[in-house]
Amino acid sequence: MAPRAVVLLSGGMDSATALAIALQEGFEVTALSVDYGQRHRKELDSARKVAKHFGVRDHRVVSLDLTAIGGSALTDKKIPVPEQRRLEEIGQAIPATYVPARNTILLGYALGLAEATGAKAIYIAANQIDYSGYPDCRPEFYKAFQEVARLGTQRGVEGDIIEIRTPLLAMSKADIVRKGEELGVPWALTWSCYQGEEKACGVCDACQLRLKGFREAGVKDPLPYARRPRVTNA
Amino acid sequence: MAPRAVVLLSGGMDSATALAIALQEGFEVTALSVDYGQRHRKELDSARKVAKHFGVRDHRVVSLDLTAIGGSALTDKKIPVPEQRRLEEIGQAIPATYVPARNTILLGYALGLAEATGAKAIYIAANQIDYSGYPDCRPEFYKAFQEVARLGTQRGVEGDIIEIRTPLLAMSKADIVRKGEELGVPWALTWSCYQGEEKACGVCDACQLRLKGFREAGVKDPLPYARRPRVTNA
Repeated sequence: MAPRAVVLLSGGMDSATALAIALQEGFEVTALSVDYGQRHRKELDSARKVAKHFGVRDHRVVSLDLTAIGGSALTDKKIPVPEQRRLEEIGQAIPATYVPARNTILLGYALGLAEATGAKAIYIAANQIDYSGYPDCRPEFYKAFQEVARLGTQRGVEGDIIEIRTPLLAMSKADIVRKGEELGVPWALTWSCYQGEEKACGVCDACQLRLKGFREAGVKDPLPYARRPRVTNA
Repeated sequence: MAPRAVVLLSGGMDSATALAIALQEGFEVTALSVDYGQRHRKELDSARKVAKHFGVRDHRVVSLDLTAIGGSALTDKKIPVPEQRRLEEIGQAIPATYVPARNTILLGYALGLAEATGAKAIYIAANQIDYSGYPDCRPEFYKAFQEVARLGTQRGVEGDIIEIRTPLLAMSKADIVRKGEELGVPWALTWSCYQGEEKACGVCDACQLRLKGFREAGVKDPLPYARRPRVTNA
């Protein structure tokens, strides 16, 4: 029987690639998507399509209300999503889209699920290159969380560590596109835009980083875009 | 202005005492109760009453669905709550009421809320004496989570640590009763029983530990009980 892994699957290009990597590495996957009160449902729809594409049979979509925490444009519709920021600005400082402690909360939930399902590993698509402004996208954070996983679970106490895997941590968006191409990630099913319109907006931080990644990798992004970044910083 | 703290408030005798300690230590409190799909609502009602008793104005009750994790008698009605266990057994091995990684998930959420509200500390009423079988009730777990709090938040990166405080960690239940008496904890408003009947069952692990604590402290527990433990192990 294949070992199990829990993969945090948001529906974006990064987590779709992390899922493809977990499958390539031989894991039977439990995909975990979190309905945390995000502005729109498109991400969760994408997560379902991506899981189905890869034949993941165990996909859990759970409600974790992060709107009560507040303070983020991703969970509070009164806070606008920044648009047309220059690429050098993105990831330098904490943006309005930062959800406080989100990766800690997501990993905590994934850890409970991993303990309950007997999973050997948790995959999270965090990335420190394009999100250097997010404290919970740094390697030292994952090292600290690995200790929590070891000390805070019954399995860890028994010496059977649940491994926190961050395969995209040191990749650029272009690296991720190349890796995803190699593994057959269905880009057209993924959704990165912070807005939930019919077409991707093209000008939020997520769209800009995505477009830059595809451009640098020389791959065509199949998603339709409403607008294009003002400054391409090519 | 008083510094702020987030207090995890389940509605049980331990978290009510932790709240009283946070107030005594001079904090303006944001109480956080989690509706995680527990078997019954009595705990959350108790949390509301306890928060009101202490004049806490900011009490947030948030939904975090832990039922999808499964594997625990507290979130799955098909798994029976153990009754009439001998006191020596309680806390020795992981009981059916263990919710995998629950304290990690609760602390993760509290951390997000602390970051968003500018809180200096998080109080959690974990206790290693009576729950020695729970991995996430041990001091080394909290030390590891403190590192996550330091590395996984913007505040931590700026050197402004959100402190994880576990004032009950080394206390016996009798110590907690004595401390609570000193601080005026309204025991009649708290609820510890794993069942959600009109009267506390008296025979689940939580009731037995509570009764033992009151007995050893020489204080009368004002709650009505349906039954009494078979073996008192006095």
